[in-house]
Amino acid sequence: MALIVQKYGGTSVADIPRIENVARRIIRDREKGHDIVVVLSAMAGETDRLISLALEASDNNPDAREYDVLISSGEQVTISTLALVLNNLGFKARSLLGHQVRVLTDTAHTNARILEIDTSLISRELRNGFIVVVAGFQGVDQDNNITTLGRGGSDTSAVALAAALKADCCEIYTDVDGVYTTDPNIYKKARKLKKITYDEMLELASAGAKVLQQRSVELAKKYEVPLYVKSSFNDDEGTLVTMEDVDMEKEIVSGVTSDKNQAKVTLIRVPDKPGVASRLFTPLSDRGIVVDMIIQNASIEGYTDLTFTVYKKDMREVREILDVVAKDVGAFSIEYDENISKISVVGVGMKSHSGVASRMFVALSKENINILMISTSEIKISCVIEEKYTELAVRVLHDAFGLEQDR
Amino acid sequence: MALIVQKYGGTSVADIPRIENVARRIIRDREKGHDIVVVLSAMAGETDRLISLALEASDNNPDAREYDVLISSGEQVTISTLALVLNNLGFKARSLLGHQVRVLTDTAHTNARILEIDTSLISRELRNGFIVVVAGFQGVDQDNNITTLGRGGSDTSAVALAAALKADCCEIYTDVDGVYTTDPNIYKKARKLKKITYDEMLELASAGAKVLQQRSVELAKKYEVPLYVKSSFNDDEGTLVTMEDVDMEKEIVSGVTSDKNQAKVTLIRVPDKPGVASRLFTPLSDRGIVVDMIIQNASIEGYTDLTFTVYKKDMREVREILDVVAKDVGAFSIEYDENISKISVVGVGMKSHSGVASRMFVALSKENINILMISTSEIKISCVIEEKYTELAVRVLHDAFGLEQDR
Repeated sequence: MALIVQKYGGTSVADIPRIENVARRIIRDREKGHDIVVVLSAMAGETDRLISLALEASDNNPDAREYDVLISSGEQVTISTLALVLNNLGFKARSLLGHQVRVLTDTAHTNARILEIDTSLISRELRNGFIVVVAGFQGVDQDNNITTLGRGGSDTSAVALAAALKADCCEIYTDVDGVYTTDPNIYKKARKLKKITYDEMLELASAGAKVLQQRSVELAKKYEVPLYVKSSFNDDEGTLVTMEDVDMEKEIVSGVTSDKNQAKVTLIRVPDKPGVASRLFTPLSDRGIVVDMIIQNASIEGYTDLTFTVYKKDMREVREILDVVAKDVGAFSIEYDENISKISVVGVGMKSHSGVASRMFVALSKENINILMISTSEIKISCVIEEKYTELAVRVLHDAFGLEQDR
Repeated sequence: MALIVQKYGGTSVADIPRIENVARRIIRDREKGHDIVVVLSAMAGETDRLISLALEASDNNPDAREYDVLISSGEQVTISTLALVLNNLGFKARSLLGHQVRVLTDTAHTNARILEIDTSLISRELRNGFIVVVAGFQGVDQDNNITTLGRGGSDTSAVALAAALKADCCEIYTDVDGVYTTDPNIYKKARKLKKITYDEMLELASAGAKVLQQRSVELAKKYEVPLYVKSSFNDDEGTLVTMEDVDMEKEIVSGVTSDKNQAKVTLIRVPDKPGVASRLFTPLSDRGIVVDMIIQNASIEGYTDLTFTVYKKDMREVREILDVVAKDVGAFSIEYDENISKISVVGVGMKSHSGVASRMFVALSKENINILMISTSEIKISCVIEEKYTELAVRVLHDAFGLEQDR
């Protein structure tokens, strides 16, 4: 008999028939003798509707505390509805809100972090034979104000609960049925992975593959919570996200991913003096603007070119800041390019296999795809290319690393 | 500077423009220097939508605890939205849920009673200059389970808060603009009352006039909280519900009301023995069926006729029970009549004026309206008549007691 945390996303609880479907899955595991803690999101679209209401009520400038009270109301509806369905089917079930469990967070409204979860009430209800249904996405600060965990925060709620309860597994049910070698919409040869490491999952997420909220994977890694990602709409096997093991070394590359959300900024002929980078990037980070890849060429005659990527959604602010700062640091000119994309290959096998980078470059050059920037981490190589080649590059790399073959 | 509790019903907060209208009213009073505690219902229709969801999820048999979690989510939306609007207009406002205030209730889910309200947090927020916006209709039991107060429970929340805070006044904003001598839809000569006593308001409510939840008036009377009922859609004067004072004695009758929701049951020739009434009414009360008027004729030759009224909605259950019980107690036969209505005149002046009843009977007989049952209380006289005469009877009695004249 195991203790399983199951998280169901918004599309899985979008209406009563789907909630009944979720209930049947839970009951199937309950009848095997497992203790089940369920974490739910709001019904698909509901959180967006509440966000619109918050923006309309505040001329797009909502008070953060009240915003959290408003947008956390959607989960209250799904958890109680599921508990009603389960009770009606003859299974003892009880819903718990963030303040009832007590999911204690910091006070960073709209993007709070979980500090501590009190497991005593959940454990008691489990001992009393209840299926416990917990509201995802929400917590309370130490003064009992409602907080929310940011977009996709229910994944984090589920993993944090699994860690606190020392659950045997955390199952994440979504509208995709696992983690693929690449986006099946881009390349139909994409293959579902049976297993992937936390680090690969993190790199895939940072490279644009949005299956799990990044923070939830970090948390799973930290507490070594096995994550099992699968669909709530079928019984296909999903993907296990876990620690590195011997099997995994056989796979050099696990996935190829692309990200069209970035833009490239180049400062041309910047005087190569100490403090320039800091004067450039500090005003960006002060405004909460994320800078991803940064490349600085070797200095020639005391000048260098500096290239980096930012998110397209931040470009207006980036231009405002850099048009001023570029002059301050004495750059000759500044160029912005929004027609780029980032292609990445990810795999723990890279650590013990050489030649991955060159194989990537060769594959791209065979198709005359020009590489504009390169950056590498221990288990990821990313190249910036022209946006129009995105899908081609994904397919070429998927073939080059033989990802369609099951290993 | 006063402390005012203001309660706004569902139609007053049905959408953002209406919530903005409510915010402007609150701000107007805030700018006069008053401390304001606002109590809100859910948006009009929302609680009904959530109830439907609960019934759909449970084949019409919802677990009471989970039902309360679900249907209490609507108020969370309105309180936070109003707080967002107020903050956006430059006024400090903070929403509080039942568990945050701490509105402690008993454990009677779906119809809980308030046991105690902790005023410390509200008082602190008022001292800090906040407008405090509290979720009506909800509380928590001692184990922090969410409870709700029953249909119209937000009125009770408001009065209980006003009592606990020792507020100067509790203003109830609704979609009607006060309490009338009779239903203006039945008789256009209906006149708005400036003042009415708690007892009159209670008798009017029990006689079918649904302006305030009955329990809220009982509570206001118990703690002597002045209730001011007015419209949130205009600035007309409303009606003050308060203790009896000298002025009021001038008015013999304050209102005429009618109730078409009752049905009449007659047991013919029941043996007049001790214990018969108990054997009849105990099975009804065991099933939660309310019996209103009861009349027993004088016994003739050891037999009596017993007549009483129940609500039409309970008729199926009543028939099931009484078809059996009537035989058990030896009644000759049983008659059911759903084509009746109850007409009542209410007024504290009756206590010191005689002849009200006869004036009522004369007025009805002049129009050949047959009286089927009569019952009286200290400040109310009710007659059951044929349903088809309802509107005529209301108009005739309104004229007979001169209610259209302002006094």
